[in-house]
Amino acid sequence: MNNPITGLLNVAALLWAAYFGGTTIFVALGAILGTFVSTITAYPLHADRESIRSGLYGFNGMLVGAALPTFLDNTPSMWALLLLATITVTFVTIALERLLSTWKIPGLTFPFVLTSWIVLLATYRFTAAAPAGLPKAQLIAPAVAVDHVWTLGDFLHASLTSVSQVFFVNNPVSGAIFLFALAVHSRWCALLAASGAALAVVTAWLLGADPTLILHGLWGYSAALTAPAIGCIFLKPSARSLALSALAVGFTVLVQAATASVSETVGLPALTFPFVLTTWIFLLAKPGVESESAEPNA
Amino acid sequence: MNNPITGLLNVAALLWAAYFGGTTIFVALGAILGTFVSTITAYPLHADRESIRSGLYGFNGMLVGAALPTFLDNTPSMWALLLLATITVTFVTIALERLLSTWKIPGLTFPFVLTSWIVLLATYRFTAAAPAGLPKAQLIAPAVAVDHVWTLGDFLHASLTSVSQVFFVNNPVSGAIFLFALAVHSRWCALLAASGAALAVVTAWLLGADPTLILHGLWGYSAALTAPAIGCIFLKPSARSLALSALAVGFTVLVQAATASVSETVGLPALTFPFVLTTWIFLLAKPGVESESAEPNA
Amino acid sequence: MNNPITGLLNVAALLWAAYFGGTTIFVALGAILGTFVSTITAYPLHADRESIRSGLYGFNGMLVGAALPTFLDNTPSMWALLLLATITVTFVTIALERLLSTWKIPGLTFPFVLTSWIVLLATYRFTAAAPAGLPKAQLIAPAVAVDHVWTLGDFLHASLTSVSQVFFVNNPVSGAIFLFALAVHSRWCALLAASGAALAVVTAWLLGADPTLILHGLWGYSAALTAPAIGCIFLKPSARSLALSALAVGFTVLVQAATASVSETVGLPALTFPFVLTTWIFLLAKPGVESESAEPNA
Repeated sequence: MNNPITGLLNVAALLWAAYFGGTTIFVALGAILGTFVSTITAYPLHADRESIRSGLYGFNGMLVGAALPTFLDNTPSMWALLLLATITVTFVTIALERLLSTWKIPGLTFPFVLTSWIVLLATYRFTAAAPAGLPKAQLIAPAVAVDHVWTLGDFLHASLTSVSQVFFVNNPVSGAIFLFALAVHSRWCALLAASGAALAVVTAWLLGADPTLILHGLWGYSAALTAPAIGCIFLKPSARSLALSALAVGFTVLVQAATASVSETVGLPALTFPFVLTTWIFLLAKPGVESESAEPNA
Repeated sequence: MNNPITGLLNVAALLWAAYFGGTTIFVALGAILGTFVSTITAYPLHADRESIRSGLYGFNGMLVGAALPTFLDNTPSMWALLLLATITVTFVTIALERLLSTWKIPGLTFPFVLTSWIVLLATYRFTAAAPAGLPKAQLIAPAVAVDHVWTLGDFLHASLTSVSQVFFVNNPVSGAIFLFALAVHSRWCALLAASGAALAVVTAWLLGADPTLILHGLWGYSAALTAPAIGCIFLKPSARSLALSALAVGFTVLVQAATASVSETVGLPALTFPFVLTTWIFLLAKPGVESESAEPNA
Repeated sequence: MNNPITGLLNVAALLWAAYFGGTTIFVALGAILGTFVSTITAYPLHADRESIRSGLYGFNGMLVGAALPTFLDNTPSMWALLLLATITVTFVTIALERLLSTWKIPGLTFPFVLTSWIVLLATYRFTAAAPAGLPKAQLIAPAVAVDHVWTLGDFLHASLTSVSQVFFVNNPVSGAIFLFALAVHSRWCALLAASGAALAVVTAWLLGADPTLILHGLWGYSAALTAPAIGCIFLKPSARSLALSALAVGFTVLVQAATASVSETVGLPALTFPFVLTTWIFLLAKPGVESESAEPNA
């Protein structure tokens, strides 16, 4: 999403949430630092200039930079780890690009997911970095029903917060700003992001997921990425790609649940792995699906 | 195993077990529905007609359709999940085919394993789908000896039940019908399936595995697939491929144990992953092994 | 490291430790047997003669042969498993070579890691093979501070022991002999191995890792492999590859911690997986890094 206005609006959304609640100023600072460090690391590695300018490296670096202050205490060690991680994520991004070039599919946010999982898992063995915001490692058990009377406002709140959770923010207004930032880039993409989040929220609600987690946007953030990736960015907008997009959102909700089941066993959040796995499967299956170009299409 | 008589006999074996014990009628219904849904999903995806007719998509769909009613309660949500899963397994199959085409190896039952693991793991987070038949998630611990006086009849029972467990059935007569169905296709394949199961049962017994699990066929079902895959379907029958087949069965037993150790930590069954991993390793190592064709050979 | 003198010195280091403490004679015997079995298995598989002579198969076989007596009790079943595992590791090595040939990167010690993990995990389900030396499976929890007054001698001890732990030996003198054996091959490689171990020890100490584990060399053994792999064996020695090597050591320490967090959840040691993953990432990112040959360069 290589648009400077989109980038500035994203920063605005982070700062809004830091001020009005939903995240901390350290997440906004980490995001800015991560974008900067990962981008300048790409230059000595002779990475493709076009890719650097389009923000490929910066986007994964920004997410790593936002993730660490979200889940770890604000200590000097955390910032040292953040620096090492945002340098390394560029190596991971280039390495993954080379692996996936065999099948001409994009790395998506997997460099961010892998690097963040490694650093977050690592903190369990270091006294210098307290994993304060990480889920407690525990064995999975069948879900227990939690009562909640759902209103239409709850669904709207959960859907917008899902969008904001892409950036680790728990704030529906930030979610709306993120959607607006995406709409500057493409209104169809923004509509799909919002609808994808909403469809995921409804699916999770129908299946009986924990209402608190739904309201905090933790069931819809991956789907908010899957829907525009399938229906707007990597496939041409059409009735067919819209149908695929809806199917992909349904599957994303299952992968979200499955990933959380495994990741919480080792005290980790699912991050955007459900989006990555689902989108890879649908893009790999695509040659049989559509004959159109694989070029991103905004 | 693209033979209509083989298919009909497999359905007969499932119905036998549903009637006389060893599985439920829902498993048979799920298998039939899964075959149907996954096959028709392949058509709009423009999948290769030859692959569709040979049952590639239907086979993985059938296994997903049998797995879900085996491990989950018979609720409307389970059938909704089964529908979504048997549509998606065709996408997974096509995606995996594309990945593996780089090395010219087959996807085997991995689309079934991956899709089923995702759906089964997901049910731990939904109140609408109770994971009643799944193993309780627990940390692994060293094995405890269980006394059992083994008779020749026990070994025969364990071996035939191993064959039936390929289709989630705990019934030696069904196992014999499945073997007969395979013999219609190829007698050498059927002999290898039976011998592979028997060799795995003996290996597990020698190493001191839990006798109850051996008798329920849970130590031999993967080997019942590995042996014919290596010794009959993907390599030409010969003294050499027979020796490789026996070695592969030995390794399958270790992978079976290893997979169960990890999967039970997250409350999942091993499914046929041990067969998939072992067969991939032996087929990938094959170019150095044999110069013969990689074409399936029945 | 295809040098007969290096090989003999390695055996000398294992025997030293078996006699003076730090390992057992069974580890030395297992290593010799593993080298032998995995090497002769490569011949009927028509593996590349040059690869066989250079010790590619033997090296992974040696590590499997050393790992099993380190973590399992010395029983007849252990030796039977060791025989099956050291035959199979050659199949795994050839299979992985074929997979990775797509990207022209080496398999490193991953065949050893995968095969050993499978066998060690498997022993949890067999009464015939007691996993006496394996870590108890447990859920991860935040690190607890352990007091220890560090001396310069401690850092030296930890660094040399890290080198010896590459071969499962807890003995600084053996570490020095291994370094000397590597210096026969290349003094620059040996210097990097020692410096990589030392840098990892200091990094782990700064982050607050458990002092006992640092002193036992369990924080530096992967880095003792990563540093020479990046800075000497696969990239040309230069100021640039030295800097990459240092960065890779820092990341190896994080991967070491992350791998241990996951592997101990299922009662496994991390083995040299942190070295493998880090080196793969840096070598895959290399085309953008250096235009030099990918050929090993000693």
